[in-house]
Amino acid sequence: MKRLVKLFSIFVILVFLLVSCNCEKPQEKVQPKEVKFEFGVASYSLRKFSAEKALAFTKKLGIENIAFKSFHLKLDAADGEIAEVVQMCKDAGVNLYAGGVIYMNTEAEVVQAFEYAQKAGMKVIVGVPKHELLPYVEQKVKDYNIKLAIHNHGPGDKLYPSAEIAYNLIKDMNARMGLCLDIGHTTRIGRDPSEDLVSFFGRVHDIHIKDVTAASHEGNTCEIGRGIIDIEKFLKTLLDMEYDGMVSFEYEKDGDNPFAGMAESVGYVRGMLKILKQN
Amino acid sequence: MKRLVKLFSIFVILVFLLVSCNCEKPQEKVQPKEVKFEFGVASYSLRKFSAEKALAFTKKLGIENIAFKSFHLKLDAADGEIAEVVQMCKDAGVNLYAGGVIYMNTEAEVVQAFEYAQKAGMKVIVGVPKHELLPYVEQKVKDYNIKLAIHNHGPGDKLYPSAEIAYNLIKDMNARMGLCLDIGHTTRIGRDPSEDLVSFFGRVHDIHIKDVTAASHEGNTCEIGRGIIDIEKFLKTLLDMEYDGMVSFEYEKDGDNPFAGMAESVGYVRGMLKILKQN
Repeated sequence: MKRLVKLFSIFVILVFLLVSCNCEKPQEKVQPKEVKFEFGVASYSLRKFSAEKALAFTKKLGIENIAFKSFHLKLDAADGEIAEVVQMCKDAGVNLYAGGVIYMNTEAEVVQAFEYAQKAGMKVIVGVPKHELLPYVEQKVKDYNIKLAIHNHGPGDKLYPSAEIAYNLIKDMNARMGLCLDIGHTTRIGRDPSEDLVSFFGRVHDIHIKDVTAASHEGNTCEIGRGIIDIEKFLKTLLDMEYDGMVSFEYEKDGDNPFAGMAESVGYVRGMLKILKQN
Repeated sequence: MKRLVKLFSIFVILVFLLVSCNCEKPQEKVQPKEVKFEFGVASYSLRKFSAEKALAFTKKLGIENIAFKSFHLKLDAADGEIAEVVQMCKDAGVNLYAGGVIYMNTEAEVVQAFEYAQKAGMKVIVGVPKHELLPYVEQKVKDYNIKLAIHNHGPGDKLYPSAEIAYNLIKDMNARMGLCLDIGHTTRIGRDPSEDLVSFFGRVHDIHIKDVTAASHEGNTCEIGRGIIDIEKFLKTLLDMEYDGMVSFEYEKDGDNPFAGMAESVGYVRGMLKILKQN
């Protein structure tokens, strides 16, 4: 009799431990996530406008980082020209963090790109070197301490249609050899940008964020949120992986008047991020 | 002895019922929320541009409803002019759902506003009638079956600084007598737009969505997401209350070039809403 009562009370205690540990988990308080990455603008979006205009619009968007395409700083610019444009960026309060997309088909073009980037104080070259030049480029990323971010261009691109192809060529090279993950072209070739971000994470040195109308060769860039890319999943992945690089808006559409489409895209991403970082 | 065993097994059953009902709730699957409202543009935002341009930009934003300010359709326009502008809206595929803000200081101005709205096929007059004209306006909302949405203008406004003041004047009148809740001016006068939406819900016939830099007389409109309004809370409230009217973007800033700021605001709201409607 006594033993049964003892057994009974032990059982009660055990069950209540079970209840408490089972029920508390779902009620755990979620910690706000820290956004470690920064937004930038890929100036190809503003290719029909001057460097001054590109910088002014970047500031208007509330963005403080820019990657210049050659339209805004010629690859063969004289030192004086480069210094002027760098000063223009400083005066505008915009960080010129990268140059590109820069194509490199000869060793001379590789040297030109790294000299250009060094003089402009760029940390990253968003580049497309011929495969056989990769070992030569690897030597340069060490010599100059400037990163290479290979840009994937999707279906039809001979050199780097997917980030995977680029990754497999550089994964055993110096860690400064990496990728500029273009989520539009990644989607156009039928891959999931969030999965590629995770798979190649250690080598993602820059990101081009955008949206596209179809996951195929025919897909075109459109305002972020109006296309088919799962932007919420991609932003969640950036937060979960604690990506701390640049996320640059590249908006190919409306070359003659890209301002509204770029601004809508920036707003969409900020609106989503405001909620995602809270939980 | 037997009784104790019986008691024991009953207890076990009870505890497990308790466990199951306590633990399942937090794991319930959330149903996606239906967005019953539509977006619109308050054409005051585009006051420096033609009606054609205002319609074209509204479409570019992916918005299909517009409320015309007198800049885009004069209050004293001849029937032919009105018919032309209405046709222009139809051709552009934009629904001209309202007119305003329209000030009404005399009975003649009230009649003009309702004739104007009727000829243009508007469902709502976003209006500011003198207090003593409200009973006369109430007669007209019945005669014309067109709603009045009184627009609150914030600190310094003599007639309707807050939605509360307007609500208290019309709450016992015909249900077509209502409010255009301007969340910017509501915030500037120190009220919570989400709380006002709930308090005056049955009479909210239109909404002006925007953001402001401060909850005071000095607060100015800015891009949505860059100001101090809790947009997430307001959108959640719209969904929870199943608001099924219009939510129109009114962007007073950058009168000479409001396009990027408006587009950023639209993108921000769409990005948040994409997540909020899922849970």
